[in-house]
Amino acid sequence: MRATLLATALLALLTADLHAAEAAQPAKRKSAQEIIDAAPASAWRDLDPANTLYMELPAGRVVIELAPGFAPEHVANIKTMAKGRFWDGLNIYRSQDNFVVQFGDPDGEDAGKAKPYPPGTRTHLPAEFTRSDQGVRFDRLPDADGWAPQVGFVDGFPAARDPKAGKVWMAHCYGVVGAGRNTPPDSSIGAELYVVIGQAPRALDHQLTVVGRVVKGMELLSVIPRGPAPMGFYTDPKQRTPILSIKLASEVPKAERTRLQLLRTDSQAFRDATEARRNRVDDFYTQPAGHIDLCNVPLPVREAPAAR
Amino acid sequence: MRATLLATALLALLTADLHAAEAAQPAKRKSAQEIIDAAPASAWRDLDPANTLYMELPAGRVVIELAPGFAPEHVANIKTMAKGRFWDGLNIYRSQDNFVVQFGDPDGEDAGKAKPYPPGTRTHLPAEFTRSDQGVRFDRLPDADGWAPQVGFVDGFPAARDPKAGKVWMAHCYGVVGAGRNTPPDSSIGAELYVVIGQAPRALDHQLTVVGRVVKGMELLSVIPRGPAPMGFYTDPKQRTPILSIKLASEVPKAERTRLQLLRTDSQAFRDATEARRNRVDDFYTQPAGHIDLCNVPLPVREAPAAR
Repeated sequence: MRATLLATALLALLTADLHAAEAAQPAKRKSAQEIIDAAPASAWRDLDPANTLYMELPAGRVVIELAPGFAPEHVANIKTMAKGRFWDGLNIYRSQDNFVVQFGDPDGEDAGKAKPYPPGTRTHLPAEFTRSDQGVRFDRLPDADGWAPQVGFVDGFPAARDPKAGKVWMAHCYGVVGAGRNTPPDSSIGAELYVVIGQAPRALDHQLTVVGRVVKGMELLSVIPRGPAPMGFYTDPKQRTPILSIKLASEVPKAERTRLQLLRTDSQAFRDATEARRNRVDDFYTQPAGHIDLCNVPLPVREAPAAR
Repeated sequence: MRATLLATALLALLTADLHAAEAAQPAKRKSAQEIIDAAPASAWRDLDPANTLYMELPAGRVVIELAPGFAPEHVANIKTMAKGRFWDGLNIYRSQDNFVVQFGDPDGEDAGKAKPYPPGTRTHLPAEFTRSDQGVRFDRLPDADGWAPQVGFVDGFPAARDPKAGKVWMAHCYGVVGAGRNTPPDSSIGAELYVVIGQAPRALDHQLTVVGRVVKGMELLSVIPRGPAPMGFYTDPKQRTPILSIKLASEVPKAERTRLQLLRTDSQAFRDATEARRNRVDDFYTQPAGHIDLCNVPLPVREAPAAR
């Protein structure tokens, strides 16, 4: 009897302990993907056709989101050039491994051969390397970064900030699109553009004007054969990849548009997914890093749900 | 006359100022490339044929330096498999954009189809995620890194270190080669290998066994068409890139070897070149970063000079 009572008491204790243990153990953590999949519709934003470029290559379409907030003058000029079909029939004339592909007019510096700019194109623009951080929403990452005092996201773009200088700029992460220039800081007009295809060359940050980011189709640019000449230029024009056309999405019939949505970087779902990435723990990853580099943070893109 | 005197005096002042300015201005800084080009022969090391793999693809040769210091058991097993020509006729069966290409036996997990391992291959190895830092020369970078307490170079490989834990490990930079595994930490044997082709996935650090680094031919791997299935796998076996052969350089006739030298990461030239990269200033780069990320540091490779 005593034994039975003792057993009963022990069982009660054990049960209580088990319940306590269950209560103390957090619910199984959601993965970044599970968080993104469960994000509400309000966490997603539509890509704005007026600020989107479609670059049509023989292999398919590359979709670029322009960043007028970072480079208003360059973006306006790029829109003028796209409307004037400047890039149609030009090509990707540079592909440097672990660095950039670059496109535009390979004869742009040869006055006799250069393709004329469309009417309205401005042939001189100010450098737009940084912008004021006044009134700019900066979704800061908690992580340290040797390149800038702060890193995070602005308008969905990877960005860095110097609060003392009151400046913010886009970071040269994979897929970021910048305006090639010559030596003078104000020598770019957006006609010659490069796309980062390797380890983020952050030393370029705030030294060039960055105009946007590839949101779909990076895998078409990243596999373009590397050029054998210095800096990845080609030795034979035949090696270049032709550009069929570059158009603003707003100029393409609706039925032919790639309808995309991007996860808002100011959404709770984005913050939670990033936190899950920073501390990834599952059967495979047993030691969470407790850290993520700005350029390792995925910026989720999805097909827009069918119209309701 | 007075005017002339005044002019002479002004000229003298101006000249003095110019000389002072010249004296105050440091000698023109050498670029990283100039420093590397001027490095003495002693700053270069020959690639050891006994620790070098040649991966022959239809597009050409990829040269991999193995890292027995980091993963002695895996590297020994890889050598056994290379001598037994395990990979000849197998393929690159995965290419995931901004992440890795992976090669080996696509049927390796199907007991009925898997290619047998060569005699002597060990089918179970310990995980070799980290090594002790005792007696290891660690050429530390001065820069902060959110992934590890210290970063730098060991034996010419990009590495990270935790002095408190007394551990060092190779960092997942562009071109680094690791051993794919299943869920158990000790489930890799070096038969399935991946190569980093994008932004350094440093969250993989010390969670997988890293076996070496591509020192030549990355541009052949990085352009391999991305697989359309999840994680970059192919949907059709025809999409895979065949591997003609993988051999140890020491098993290839001398005349057919790729004779390479690597800049020693413990050389003054390497330190100076890295410092020049950290603080790049020239006509184009007007604002030195004062920083470099581990995976942005180039590890120079050159053809070995003709035999003397």
